[in-house]
Amino acid sequence: MIQTELSAPLDFLLQHHVEEITAPAGTIIASPGDICQNLIVLLEGQVRIYRPAEDGRSITLYNVGKGESCTLTASCILNTTAFPAIAKVEKDAKGFVISAKQVQKWLKTEPIWQNYMFSLLSQRIVALISLVDALAFQNLDVRLAYWLLDHSQSQSIINTTHQRIADDLASSREVISRLLKEFEVNGCLNLARGYVELINREKLSHLTLM
Amino acid sequence: MIQTELSAPLDFLLQHHVEEITAPAGTIIASPGDICQNLIVLLEGQVRIYRPAEDGRSITLYNVGKGESCTLTASCILNTTAFPAIAKVEKDAKGFVISAKQVQKWLKTEPIWQNYMFSLLSQRIVALISLVDALAFQNLDVRLAYWLLDHSQSQSIINTTHQRIADDLASSREVISRLLKEFEVNGCLNLARGYVELINREKLSHLTLM
Repeated sequence: MIQTELSAPLDFLLQHHVEEITAPAGTIIASPGDICQNLIVLLEGQVRIYRPAEDGRSITLYNVGKGESCTLTASCILNTTAFPAIAKVEKDAKGFVISAKQVQKWLKTEPIWQNYMFSLLSQRIVALISLVDALAFQNLDVRLAYWLLDHSQSQSIINTTHQRIADDLASSREVISRLLKEFEVNGCLNLARGYVELINREKLSHLTLM
Repeated sequence: MIQTELSAPLDFLLQHHVEEITAPAGTIIASPGDICQNLIVLLEGQVRIYRPAEDGRSITLYNVGKGESCTLTASCILNTTAFPAIAKVEKDAKGFVISAKQVQKWLKTEPIWQNYMFSLLSQRIVALISLVDALAFQNLDVRLAYWLLDHSQSQSIINTTHQRIADDLASSREVISRLLKEFEVNGCLNLARGYVELINREKLSHLTLM
């Protein structure tokens, strides 16, 4: 996730010119083919942007967190193209709603908004290239090890399901369950219903170097 | 490739303020870790932007053509991060050279330049998401069929080597040669040294739908 704190001038601009919106976890904000009418700058919560495949798999392109916007929405507004993914609220979300027209207008008139948008777009390009890299060159076990390390941060418990990991990594639940079992046998983690406990982070990190 | 014609006002701006440069095919313009000092807007030729892997494979992120710039360079200039790929001239190139400082300055002062940069960045995001999609969900034979159709356009002869196709698709020459042989046996194409001749485009297109 790209960590972007809203600067004071940008926060001021948004607070005085646009409405706030809330959406509970589970809400689908946008689907493939939608015309983007608004851009949301998140104040709280998390929104997952993912591409679905016809066979039921999906891949998470990125998660939008506090202070961020959906770069793909911005991209669709700027190119007047249809949204090519699904945007789903993962954690109860609150955000500023900026109309497509306002997005375009501020790009011409508000340097603080220009900076924010350039930063969003350009950081996302670098992040997407990392994803391309992982998909092109890393085996699924390495991508899974990265996923576990990314999602655990300093904690050892990750509340998740095997299906959810599969949905992030363009895999199936069966394949993810088999790999997690291998990691468990190798002493990297313990598996339980609804969560994964990392017990040897170093060993797991070692996998990502192979 | 994103087809961007330089608008008359942008062309005027560039012609009157920056230098032109030429580089023959084979020139490496940037390597991983480089700090981007300049952005080049191509007037002629083609530059391939690709990520190398340690095992010798590579994947083409995109090709920069006439009227375009390297979005990744723009992104690195805007974020002051190091270049994460290789930029290699594929066809003799000529272009305008804009210093990183000028890129930043014009973003504040020249609406025509802002538009150009926003358009480049946002179109590239959509293109990168298509690449993520292909890598996540399509088998290599389907990606190869798309590659052949993309590179043949209306002609039936594609001047290429199996190694070059492998370099674009994050594969190895051996695997690409085997798949091309299968396509030949199925009557989609003829193989010869230095080129591939498509003889049944419809049959090849059919593969991309599977």
